[in-house]
Amino acid sequence: MTLTGQYFIAGERRGHGEIFHAYDPARGASITDIGFFSSDERDIADACAAAEDAAVSYADLPLERRAAFLEAIASEIEGLGDALLSRAAAESGLPLARLTGERGRTCGQLRLFAAEVRDGQWLKLRIDHADPARTPPKPDLRLRMIPLGPVAVFGASNFPLAFSTAGGDTASALAAGCPVVVKGHPAHPGTAELVAGAITRAAAATGMPAGVFSMVTGTGNAIGAALVADPRIQAVGFTGSRSGGEALMKIAAARPQPIPVYAEMSAINPVILLPHALASRGKALAAGYVGSLTLGSGQFCTNPGLALALEGAALDAFLTEAGALVEAQVPQTMLTAGIHSAYEKGSAALAATPEVQTIARGVHPTGPHEGRTALFSVAAKDWLAKVELQHEVFGTSSIVVRCADRHELLAVLRGLEGQLTATLHMDEADTDVARALLPVLERKVGRILANGWPTGVEVGHAINHGGPYPATSDGRTTSVGTLAIDRFLRPVAYQDLPEALLPEALREGGQGGVIARIDGAWRLA
Amino acid sequence: MTLTGQYFIAGERRGHGEIFHAYDPARGASITDIGFFSSDERDIADACAAAEDAAVSYADLPLERRAAFLEAIASEIEGLGDALLSRAAAESGLPLARLTGERGRTCGQLRLFAAEVRDGQWLKLRIDHADPARTPPKPDLRLRMIPLGPVAVFGASNFPLAFSTAGGDTASALAAGCPVVVKGHPAHPGTAELVAGAITRAAAATGMPAGVFSMVTGTGNAIGAALVADPRIQAVGFTGSRSGGEALMKIAAARPQPIPVYAEMSAINPVILLPHALASRGKALAAGYVGSLTLGSGQFCTNPGLALALEGAALDAFLTEAGALVEAQVPQTMLTAGIHSAYEKGSAALAATPEVQTIARGVHPTGPHEGRTALFSVAAKDWLAKVELQHEVFGTSSIVVRCADRHELLAVLRGLEGQLTATLHMDEADTDVARALLPVLERKVGRILANGWPTGVEVGHAINHGGPYPATSDGRTTSVGTLAIDRFLRPVAYQDLPEALLPEALREGGQGGVIARIDGAWRLA
Repeated sequence: MTLTGQYFIAGERRGHGEIFHAYDPARGASITDIGFFSSDERDIADACAAAEDAAVSYADLPLERRAAFLEAIASEIEGLGDALLSRAAAESGLPLARLTGERGRTCGQLRLFAAEVRDGQWLKLRIDHADPARTPPKPDLRLRMIPLGPVAVFGASNFPLAFSTAGGDTASALAAGCPVVVKGHPAHPGTAELVAGAITRAAAATGMPAGVFSMVTGTGNAIGAALVADPRIQAVGFTGSRSGGEALMKIAAARPQPIPVYAEMSAINPVILLPHALASRGKALAAGYVGSLTLGSGQFCTNPGLALALEGAALDAFLTEAGALVEAQVPQTMLTAGIHSAYEKGSAALAATPEVQTIARGVHPTGPHEGRTALFSVAAKDWLAKVELQHEVFGTSSIVVRCADRHELLAVLRGLEGQLTATLHMDEADTDVARALLPVLERKVGRILANGWPTGVEVGHAINHGGPYPATSDGRTTSVGTLAIDRFLRPVAYQDLPEALLPEALREGGQGGVIARIDGAWRLA
Repeated sequence: MTLTGQYFIAGERRGHGEIFHAYDPARGASITDIGFFSSDERDIADACAAAEDAAVSYADLPLERRAAFLEAIASEIEGLGDALLSRAAAESGLPLARLTGERGRTCGQLRLFAAEVRDGQWLKLRIDHADPARTPPKPDLRLRMIPLGPVAVFGASNFPLAFSTAGGDTASALAAGCPVVVKGHPAHPGTAELVAGAITRAAAATGMPAGVFSMVTGTGNAIGAALVADPRIQAVGFTGSRSGGEALMKIAAARPQPIPVYAEMSAINPVILLPHALASRGKALAAGYVGSLTLGSGQFCTNPGLALALEGAALDAFLTEAGALVEAQVPQTMLTAGIHSAYEKGSAALAATPEVQTIARGVHPTGPHEGRTALFSVAAKDWLAKVELQHEVFGTSSIVVRCADRHELLAVLRGLEGQLTATLHMDEADTDVARALLPVLERKVGRILANGWPTGVEVGHAINHGGPYPATSDGRTTSVGTLAIDRFLRPVAYQDLPEALLPEALREGGQGGVIARIDGAWRLA
């Protein structure tokens, strides 16, 4: 388990030439125990060629073997023990307790996708039988979903485990039958090496084709750009900044063969405090809001960067209460120097905006990259006039928009860009207002919550972690939960194929436990 | 039913200013009985605003009413009687028999999507129940698909009915719950006006919101460009040329909010004549091939523009036979002057390519825009060296690629761009070779046929009319068949919503006949 500073191309460690170091944001210093090699163009080409070589053989393995591979990855990651957690903590500034939970989420996610592979409903089997007597004769048609081919996955800085090397994108792409080439995030190269090693060992132990997984790494944008431009890559998974996601979208769209990019990018996740709820339990709402805002130093995609309420005494009391809680907030280390400086810049710009009132700031930081919590307020009419107030400030910064009436509240919601989530805090007496808002929210967001907080994204079957642009690049998809597998599949129809040539699942009676649509009717064998 | 030359904005006829005329390709002359008005920017903005206004109310109608609307469109189209067919024939040069069939396909498709709306499985209902005892507490999550919002549909020149104003894109978008703004194809403006009138009457008769349907029209690219750029449009359906589709993709990608474009563009649909089949029934294969190639003057997306076989006596005999059939082919009128001239240019360029042998040309045209059938042949090594030989020549032109051995055959297939279809002609003794080709074909195409011809696309549940780029802009989708509805949907998750706020289909026991995934298990009530 000792780090070597190398990356992985189709089962082999590689690394030569110049090195870069990880950085410990809590200490504000490089971690110099080990240097990490950067991948070059040749490495990327080799990884993609190996992925393409593996594409058919991996796709054609029995589903049970694909599932066993995913489970083996989970076990190998658990086998890394505390070394993984302490390395991830050093490279991210995240507390061990959080990383322990994140490891559980990562391994649980891999096992969930293993179960999903076995479940097989994602094959979307359909059979329309022939009718030779019809004029013109009706052919026999059978349809299933097949994997897209090699997928590029970008590690995310804010989830070094659950959205990185063996995170949700990798798990769902592998589950779909696609080989994966990961671009490891340079903020946590040691974590990435450890996890990539675990995947590589799992692939070998379960007899996968070598090209099923590679991880390239390095600083700068050239490696990721070359990976997305490689003609063998057929889809991209990304979690990160809007500028990063949009850069990848441009590269993907400019290819001779454009490919889908699933980028989860930017959201401020409005929280709407409806009048009766605000009046009856403003104090509890303030505590919940500040708790959700400051969780993990605010570095969640679903962090509540925006709250909305009607002007009045209840809102004033809420702001006072929330302000007091914010003032007591001890600063937490942020993930990277870059993220911290962007946060400082973004929160300072809000503080300097004449129309924006600073309600409270948290305790002054003492560590090198700690974020100081910031709570702002603005009148709805000013918010509506300044589109830049919508831009996400990644970290513990949030704005409360004060609305004169329901019309202004609706106008603010209608003016929002696409979001991952929207949250309604409501009492029973708020039901009618909430009902009127729902159709607007449905058009804007991917997940609507009532009386909860958007941070905390359940990994399950009915979750949607996606949303209209720019929350994600493709609001038709989710990056969390079992539905994420659909991103890496496409249909193929087989017309009048001899039984011997048909995939097993499409032969007569070959559907096993999978629901098939047969001559229009949905049948579960 | 009299033509007025006007277009339709949210239930109202409009038209003013300059006019253009339809063109009869069989006569080679404009049809001057009626002039057609061009829509302007204001019309497009009004149509999009009305579509946005209608989006929520249309989406929220009971599914039965949405289905009744689709059925009413079919009845209204049938009610247009022979006037529709004769107008379409005059504007397209297509024979009445073909247009009669196409009308049946169009109305059948609308009724199929009405049934699909009622079926409701596209809602993809999922419920994960809460578990308050878990640490952390597990929320209640419920997911369904909702419509994307207003959709722009571009009429196709080669199917004035089935892929145009009330064609597959319109039917599937309306079925998904999306208002539609059609850009009528300027090659058949009278046909478009008649069909748009039918849709408008059906919308009024079934009480749809007025903005559920509009049709704008005109020559030139500006109208379509403005439509795709309009911020209210959320997806685009298009069938046409690669250059046209790619232009729309660029506009859609450059929007502040990029949107999906479903463009069905370009394919040469390889037909592989395996050795035993070629030896045992080369004559029948030649007849089938020339028949598929010349059907509808070759103006089908699935026209077989490429055949592949191993060199030898059987192939020589096939070429002789096919050549004789081609020489006897009477030319047919092509759809437009532009399509005809592109065909002449494309087939002349092939004829002038030194490596390409002209096997046969059909009978010399006598009418103004008739296409002269062309059969070419080329050695695989020359094909592989000249990538431009892959470019589609839309019409009755096809190339037979002579392969020295199976390796060359595989190399040609591997070098192909994405295709809508691939066809295997095989006897039982060809099974092993066919099996070896299948994984290559699956990566390249959307539909694989055995012992049939790719023209003729069944409208059903198990059809896929799509394929990897550039066959379509988005190989994850189909533009024909019930699966096409998925293109216009996206997921929304509801977390801990009070029962009173949940959509009916997501309440406890509210799934009706729809399969729901409940706590991971698939249940059909």
